[in-house]
Amino acid sequence: MKIEDIGEFGLIRRIKKFAVTDPSVIKGIGDDCAVIDTGSHAYTLMTCDMIVEGVDFERGERPQRIGRKALAVSLSDIAACGGLPHYALVSLGLPAKTPVAVVDELYRGMAALAREYGVSIVGGDISKAPTLTIDLSLYGSVEKHQLVLRDGAREGDIIFVTGSFGGSIKGKHLTFTPRLKESAFLVNNFKVNSMIDCSDGLAQDLQHILEASNAGCILFEHMIPQSKASKGIEDALFSGEDFELIFTVGQEAARGIMAQTQFEFYPIGSVAAPRSGMRIIDDKGRGGRLEPKGFRHF
Amino acid sequence: MKIEDIGEFGLIRRIKKFAVTDPSVIKGIGDDCAVIDTGSHAYTLMTCDMIVEGVDFERGERPQRIGRKALAVSLSDIAACGGLPHYALVSLGLPAKTPVAVVDELYRGMAALAREYGVSIVGGDISKAPTLTIDLSLYGSVEKHQLVLRDGAREGDIIFVTGSFGGSIKGKHLTFTPRLKESAFLVNNFKVNSMIDCSDGLAQDLQHILEASNAGCILFEHMIPQSKASKGIEDALFSGEDFELIFTVGQEAARGIMAQTQFEFYPIGSVAAPRSGMRIIDDKGRGGRLEPKGFRHF
Repeated sequence: MKIEDIGEFGLIRRIKKFAVTDPSVIKGIGDDCAVIDTGSHAYTLMTCDMIVEGVDFERGERPQRIGRKALAVSLSDIAACGGLPHYALVSLGLPAKTPVAVVDELYRGMAALAREYGVSIVGGDISKAPTLTIDLSLYGSVEKHQLVLRDGAREGDIIFVTGSFGGSIKGKHLTFTPRLKESAFLVNNFKVNSMIDCSDGLAQDLQHILEASNAGCILFEHMIPQSKASKGIEDALFSGEDFELIFTVGQEAARGIMAQTQFEFYPIGSVAAPRSGMRIIDDKGRGGRLEPKGFRHF
Repeated sequence: MKIEDIGEFGLIRRIKKFAVTDPSVIKGIGDDCAVIDTGSHAYTLMTCDMIVEGVDFERGERPQRIGRKALAVSLSDIAACGGLPHYALVSLGLPAKTPVAVVDELYRGMAALAREYGVSIVGGDISKAPTLTIDLSLYGSVEKHQLVLRDGAREGDIIFVTGSFGGSIKGKHLTFTPRLKESAFLVNNFKVNSMIDCSDGLAQDLQHILEASNAGCILFEHMIPQSKASKGIEDALFSGEDFELIFTVGQEAARGIMAQTQFEFYPIGSVAAPRSGMRIIDDKGRGGRLEPKGFRHF
């Protein structure tokens, strides 16, 4: 049996068995960040993301954009938990023939974004590797009462997103804004019941929330904001790497969010009973099943 | 100009320029771990290591030993700072055709060692990659007064090692014991002036201490413990991946260390004035210059 036979999520379920944790681990494998209670007033958040040439970016891509993405994807994970990022470690695997200028530019892109969000790059590792590979681990914190996980969505919650979907392969996957400001605004002002960052596609990542929360949903196709580069609703729902936040809040918070003007948050549907599954209503008012498909590594 | 032209350490010096840090970062790039003051009674330690098939282990190596090594090398970094390990994130890059059993065994090896040292595996990432690549980041802590860095060696210090050197390619690089118990014993009982873990070779890693401390050394060839697999003094001095600790202490602590019987620590020489450079005295009493050569990725 090969990895491609059990798929990415099958593999994660398998790995989870091996993850022995102690009571200080509030949340281990299975959310955007690991959440640790170190005894301080805030929880510690930890997340890591590996990006690989030919998988997460094309060979020949501008190194500055690659470095930026390496950090941005982890910033997005911290945002998804309602936290703030602090410290990054960067492991870099690269062929010996790599021009030094590539590494310079890569770090330039990463450091610019780090400065923007107050992240210190504190260490890392360098290894020879057959293709350019970056693994960045990011360490952050979240006020205990502001922690948001995937599993808190409740029937009747309104589902919001922070931006538009589809066509991110045209460039957004490298240039997106990690939604840390939006996340901070939300957790400072509202009770957010569940949140995730959308890396593998709107439908699939929303399903992660619904599965963890034991709930269903009803989406309205015409309410889903589509990027200019989107080729249509299928692209917006399933293609991934949009790195917008998907979150759910109760009705009262939803009214508050729609009344504010500081940020753009888009309601796209509501959380339903688990037996509803995932449903979507199209422009003509016809309901249908929404398949939780999206990007999978395997 | 390519990476291979400036070499691993040239590359690290270049990267350091980009590492903007804030005042909470006690030690950033350039030691075994990053050291952070989070306002708690202990410092936070952070380290990561990337291991790659064909570089750090051979294709076809037993996955249990690969997983074990992935964690062990980072445990060794925590030991080198006098700390305790707590939480690990594991990023795994692998080809789609990888048998599921390989991943199972890999995690089995890692989890067994994690349990042994009280480490919780709290998260990670999975990505498609051309060859098996593991990047593990480890978070630990160290009592503030017990932190040991590379830069505290003083003239007259005795240089000790925790075990034998040479021939680690025959197996020790996969099965070594990370010296956490030794490190804890040392920092609990003595003032350790400087410490490093030996991954790139005794001569080269000792030079990292001496360079950071602005010091020289005199080693005695016959006092350097050689592994059974060692092919001779050159192998012991330069081949790397022994993962023993090298540390220096003042004369009084040295006497205490030699008087205790709980652990085996081997004195191999002493710290000298910087103008001495690195010198080694051979079995016949002849002195010579010790070249700080060893394993380098580039």
